[in-house]
Amino acid sequence: MAKYVLEDFTDGRIFDLPSYAVERDEIIAFAQEYDPQPFHLDEAAGKASMLGGLSASGWHVCGMMMRMICDAYLLESTSQGSGGIDYIDWKSPVRPGDTLTGTSTVLASRTSSSKPHLGLVTIRTEIRNQRGETAAACEHLLLCLTRKGYEEGAAA
Amino acid sequence: MAKYVLEDFTDGRIFDLPSYAVERDEIIAFAQEYDPQPFHLDEAAGKASMLGGLSASGWHVCGMMMRMICDAYLLESTSQGSGGIDYIDWKSPVRPGDTLTGTSTVLASRTSSSKPHLGLVTIRTEIRNQRGETAAACEHLLLCLTRKGYEEGAAA
Repeated sequence: MAKYVLEDFTDGRIFDLPSYAVERDEIIAFAQEYDPQPFHLDEAAGKASMLGGLSASGWHVCGMMMRMICDAYLLESTSQGSGGIDYIDWKSPVRPGDTLTGTSTVLASRTSSSKPHLGLVTIRTEIRNQRGETAAACEHLLLCLTRKGYEEGAAA
Repeated sequence: MAKYVLEDFTDGRIFDLPSYAVERDEIIAFAQEYDPQPFHLDEAAGKASMLGGLSASGWHVCGMMMRMICDAYLLESTSQGSGGIDYIDWKSPVRPGDTLTGTSTVLASRTSSSKPHLGLVTIRTEIRNQRGETAAACEHLLLCLTRKGYEEGAAA
């Protein structure tokens, strides 16, 4: 099983994310459940808002981004989850028919001082639409196993 | 129609959030769509991980939090969306059977210098489980209309 361990997340390494096709039904279904503001539910309300048209919830955009990250590298990694996010910038609306792509760039990585089998990786992920406009950017922390931790079966 | 405009988001004002009952099926359905890491899908994989049991995706927890915010005040506000999030801390796992509650506290608010009908409100939201443990905390920006902007029908 090819797995990414801490040592594979070298500074500056870039992971290309697979594309994500944004569908109208999915935008509305997510919004109905988690963020039922009118501009996430209805074209006319979107047009009347600052967003200028029906647009996905920012949290939905984060969900899409996470799925892209999972499929690019996270599900092949020794991920142990994440403690949090440094920031999220929602830079331009995500609309039905958009196709998102993106990259994750490793900014820094280190071994945990208290848990030597565990690594902390700081990653910046940016996703863009088909016009090259940045849809969202964020910096997030990934907890994963070191090679030694993985080979010894720590927390696995 | 009672609406919260910029002037209603006074410094230090606290909004109590309604409770959210976390269900196993919802945890798994969200994870299958957006974050299919094993510890979000399967009890045994959760137990074997640092999370110690089946736990909701952090992004799902953000979705739950957003729904609580919507139902507490956002859907009754002149919200125009949000430009982003300052940070998210996922402090303890959210599990099936948990009941979340929380608060949003206004940290600061001001009128936009470039768009005088628009206000920018900085809010800290914290959600807790039934044992009083903080599940997640974040600081988020809310764009909303000033009273004058709302009365004049700006972007509405």
